[in-house]
Amino acid sequence: MPAPRLGISPNAELVLSMITKRQQRPQRRKAEPGQSDTAALVQRMDRGLSIQHPHTGASTLRVIPLGGVEEVGENMTIFEYENDILIVDMGFAFPDENMPGVDYIIPDTKYLQENKHKIRGVVITHGHLDHIGAVPYILPKIGDPPVFTMPLTAAFVERRLEEFHLLGRSQIHRLDIDQVLNLGTFSLRFFRLNHNIPDSMGLSIRTPAGHIIYATDWKFDHTPVDNKPSEFHKIATYGGEGVTLLMSDSTNAEVPGYSLSEKDLGETIDRVFRDAQGRIVFATFSTLINRIQQVFNSATKYDRKVVVTGRSIVASVEIAFSLGILKIPPKLIIRAEAARRLPDNKVVILSTGSQGEESASLARMARGEHKTITIKAGDTVVISASPIPGNEAAVGSVMNNMTRLGARVIYNKNLDIHSSGHAKQEDLKMMISLVKPKYFMPIHGEHHMLVAHAELAHNLGVPDANIFILDNGDAVVLREGTAKKMEHVIKTGLVFIDGLGVGDVGEVVLRDRKVMAEDGMFVVIMQIDRKTGKLANQPDIISRGFVYMKESEDLLREVKHEVRKVVETKSNKPQEPNWAYIRSRVRDQIGEFLFQRTERRPLILPVIIEV
Amino acid sequence: MPAPRLGISPNAELVLSMITKRQQRPQRRKAEPGQSDTAALVQRMDRGLSIQHPHTGASTLRVIPLGGVEEVGENMTIFEYENDILIVDMGFAFPDENMPGVDYIIPDTKYLQENKHKIRGVVITHGHLDHIGAVPYILPKIGDPPVFTMPLTAAFVERRLEEFHLLGRSQIHRLDIDQVLNLGTFSLRFFRLNHNIPDSMGLSIRTPAGHIIYATDWKFDHTPVDNKPSEFHKIATYGGEGVTLLMSDSTNAEVPGYSLSEKDLGETIDRVFRDAQGRIVFATFSTLINRIQQVFNSATKYDRKVVVTGRSIVASVEIAFSLGILKIPPKLIIRAEAARRLPDNKVVILSTGSQGEESASLARMARGEHKTITIKAGDTVVISASPIPGNEAAVGSVMNNMTRLGARVIYNKNLDIHSSGHAKQEDLKMMISLVKPKYFMPIHGEHHMLVAHAELAHNLGVPDANIFILDNGDAVVLREGTAKKMEHVIKTGLVFIDGLGVGDVGEVVLRDRKVMAEDGMFVVIMQIDRKTGKLANQPDIISRGFVYMKESEDLLREVKHEVRKVVETKSNKPQEPNWAYIRSRVRDQIGEFLFQRTERRPLILPVIIEV
Repeated sequence: MPAPRLGISPNAELVLSMITKRQQRPQRRKAEPGQSDTAALVQRMDRGLSIQHPHTGASTLRVIPLGGVEEVGENMTIFEYENDILIVDMGFAFPDENMPGVDYIIPDTKYLQENKHKIRGVVITHGHLDHIGAVPYILPKIGDPPVFTMPLTAAFVERRLEEFHLLGRSQIHRLDIDQVLNLGTFSLRFFRLNHNIPDSMGLSIRTPAGHIIYATDWKFDHTPVDNKPSEFHKIATYGGEGVTLLMSDSTNAEVPGYSLSEKDLGETIDRVFRDAQGRIVFATFSTLINRIQQVFNSATKYDRKVVVTGRSIVASVEIAFSLGILKIPPKLIIRAEAARRLPDNKVVILSTGSQGEESASLARMARGEHKTITIKAGDTVVISASPIPGNEAAVGSVMNNMTRLGARVIYNKNLDIHSSGHAKQEDLKMMISLVKPKYFMPIHGEHHMLVAHAELAHNLGVPDANIFILDNGDAVVLREGTAKKMEHVIKTGLVFIDGLGVGDVGEVVLRDRKVMAEDGMFVVIMQIDRKTGKLANQPDIISRGFVYMKESEDLLREVKHEVRKVVETKSNKPQEPNWAYIRSRVRDQIGEFLFQRTERRPLILPVIIEV
Repeated sequence: MPAPRLGISPNAELVLSMITKRQQRPQRRKAEPGQSDTAALVQRMDRGLSIQHPHTGASTLRVIPLGGVEEVGENMTIFEYENDILIVDMGFAFPDENMPGVDYIIPDTKYLQENKHKIRGVVITHGHLDHIGAVPYILPKIGDPPVFTMPLTAAFVERRLEEFHLLGRSQIHRLDIDQVLNLGTFSLRFFRLNHNIPDSMGLSIRTPAGHIIYATDWKFDHTPVDNKPSEFHKIATYGGEGVTLLMSDSTNAEVPGYSLSEKDLGETIDRVFRDAQGRIVFATFSTLINRIQQVFNSATKYDRKVVVTGRSIVASVEIAFSLGILKIPPKLIIRAEAARRLPDNKVVILSTGSQGEESASLARMARGEHKTITIKAGDTVVISASPIPGNEAAVGSVMNNMTRLGARVIYNKNLDIHSSGHAKQEDLKMMISLVKPKYFMPIHGEHHMLVAHAELAHNLGVPDANIFILDNGDAVVLREGTAKKMEHVIKTGLVFIDGLGVGDVGEVVLRDRKVMAEDGMFVVIMQIDRKTGKLANQPDIISRGFVYMKESEDLLREVKHEVRKVVETKSNKPQEPNWAYIRSRVRDQIGEFLFQRTERRPLILPVIIEV
């Protein structure tokens, strides 16, 4: 990504002066700018006041996931009632191995582009990239609608928009967790949910067609890091009001039991900090603010100073600290230079790169290429994350390099040093029991995870006919409190982001990339006399990724001979040569010839130059 | 692989008549052909006889792993004493995501090719591909030395050689677990180890320079499927004799606790068989013979018939059954056609494809493309394997398709339906305690796993100076019972197998493949007048995997314009054009131009045609 970030120093190390100055300021979360912006749009209601129930109307509400129900990622759902559209979340997904070169995947939003006049607002549930990552790609295309979210999420959204020079276009409104927000026909209330990033929330969405509870990316944690448990009372109250449809997180619906509380994890981190003889290098996701808080807590407890390294984690710490969400004692964070003057057992290095990303701080340390930090014997490296599928080898390589440098590595295989932010089966059941929905729709997961979640709902007595497993683009249609599923309501699909390109990499380009990745390519350049149809001279061969050409001279000689045969065999009739036909014959016959010799199928590209 | 397999029917379904005929034969394991071959070479000794200790000599023994200590895979170790070389195992590894198009990786055996006259034999510990996969690639290159192994492993090795039309070149000798085998200076004894394939064994290797215990791919299982636990008494006896060097399996050295016994796993499988209402589709590795036995056991117990589908698993079942290793009651195995006439709860389908492989039976069933088996609601699909890193998405895709067809999927996330064949920390410690080695060398794992294993040995009192963590090609050198490590004793490396090519894909080819996979390629064909140095006409552009060309006409026009500028700018001097210089300028400047426009870096290939 091209643009500079929020005043972060180029070497992406947290600058002491900035943060320590801020630490001396009073916490000003209450007076956060932007908070008052919402005043005109929202209607504050004290808890305990009776809540206005919209009358049940005769129109239909369509609930349509554009992404997130066929994958973990690119979460985005639209709610459409008559002339009003509400959007919840706008995330991206990471590509799998069938999408080489693709950076991210976002949902197809053609329908919204065609109906942008209906959009009343975008509500973002929390600040992870699978919920906010597509914001800069999509908001401008759909008329820069206003965004409503909690303060930390708002700051992350703004940072992302700033990277794309889009700040100031959409209004970003800060929500109060206890307010009511009316957007067109939609009346929204919010409830806090625990996740591994603060300011995560669920939604109560009341419409004339029914009452929906939307709960993504949550787990119940009775002892969370920020001491703010999920708001069970609100969930129970909404359940008491009658809920037409519950939409709930399926990521861990296949996993029995309860989630590990962040408090238990904190005790593990404490133990690592207590026992480590030398420095600790602690790598995690930059957005796992609660995990980062635990690192600061343990560092404080065991009298270690913290160096923060890696652009994204520095930015996250800055943002969360400036909002008063991260509690950091004065002088806890120091520069790498200052850390060098401390005994090793007084130092923690908080770093990005828990996925083994080649250019992140952790991998650079592991390769001995980090500017200010050199790994040495006695260091303890903690990787507090589970690898996203596809990243295992990269993480393994970091671990190998770290151990070669003499460090000890702690990761989720040898210690429970990471806990998922997603509810497991027992918590998922509790949510269904609290909400008591008439209809149930599992969200946030691959199809097999949704199916597992559906089975839990079934076991709790939700009739199978009332459980809807959707694909992206399908709808649940609510009318007068009853619901049904409709398939293929909106044409949707994957939009690939590759470099600066949005959507210009499609199936054809990916197919070619895969072929070339497997077996390379083979260009045959033929100068053909347009009168005789004969080769004017030897064909030129250019090949990459197929065989090592310098050692394949025999093969090349034979190929050139084959090419001549293919081109000239059919040319006994003195008619105008058919270039398309020759190209297709070269492609087929040279392809077949190479396959017989090598069992490889490079991409064959015949080029004819008429002379 | 091109060649037909051991009489397996083309649709790779186990043929009833073959196996039922064999079931009526008496078990003939004792009289297995080939067993007597070894008589001339080996010296049988009854257990309890005093074992001949070679005198300690003054020469050195070099223990050199060619593969397997920087990765999980391509296990191969050489033991060299004066004019004798012993080879243990000959496996391949699977490529990681940095090796697109590569099928397998095998060790570099140049040293052995140059010293083939010294090779006294190859001992294979068990029949998994990371220990036998490279046999057909390497044996012919090193003079087809004799192979010594247990009967099941021998059958797998022979099958692999047959696929490559190499059967009959190397002698394959069947060992008796209690025999002594003398190969040159080396005196070998064997002990049974538990793993998830039967006939796995460890080695006691006595040489004039010291006594080595080699234990790869094992776990202790007191209640194994075949009721043949590890031979603790032998291990203890060898320990009592004095062991110079222990080499032991590090795969799970980071994992605390004990391995799950196959018996516990069997109870889980039983439960699944008892509870499933419809058919069961059970997918596992074709070489996990013990797991396959458990499926037959549970099927028998719950009165289900078994259909076996998938070429490799059919072959494995045939081999293991013919050796009397798999116990299969008559008429347990039936054809898919016969299964269709049975009630669903009387049927199990045993299948390949537990890694989500596109062309395996399981994936074909999931896509609805299997010839004889159609998945339907009520089926239970069991995936009894953990995905090899990199295969997660493929396995996920199979699960999604299966659940779409109405099947229930059981896998290691929702049930403990797979157990690793490798010892965890407590068993690893027990091995070290039993053997009481003077020196210790962790094997079979990535570097960070070896380090974890070294730490266990350290904690058990092996001095750090006596623990050797090697890279491939390093040596442990033993002399008169003492040992030291020497680095880079043999030049080694990865040899890539791609189609029919062995070693013809190297760093350059892989780098090009990766570039093309990421951003595609871009060929610029320029017809240049050799007199004027000017373009004779518009350059031709061929590009694949970069952008969708039909929608990038503007970009192409600009590129052609740029090409003309680059070619003709320098050509004002009327001298002979410097083709290499022009090519390099086109590559650099067009590359930069495209990067600015797209942030992609396709492989740029300038082609000049002089006219």
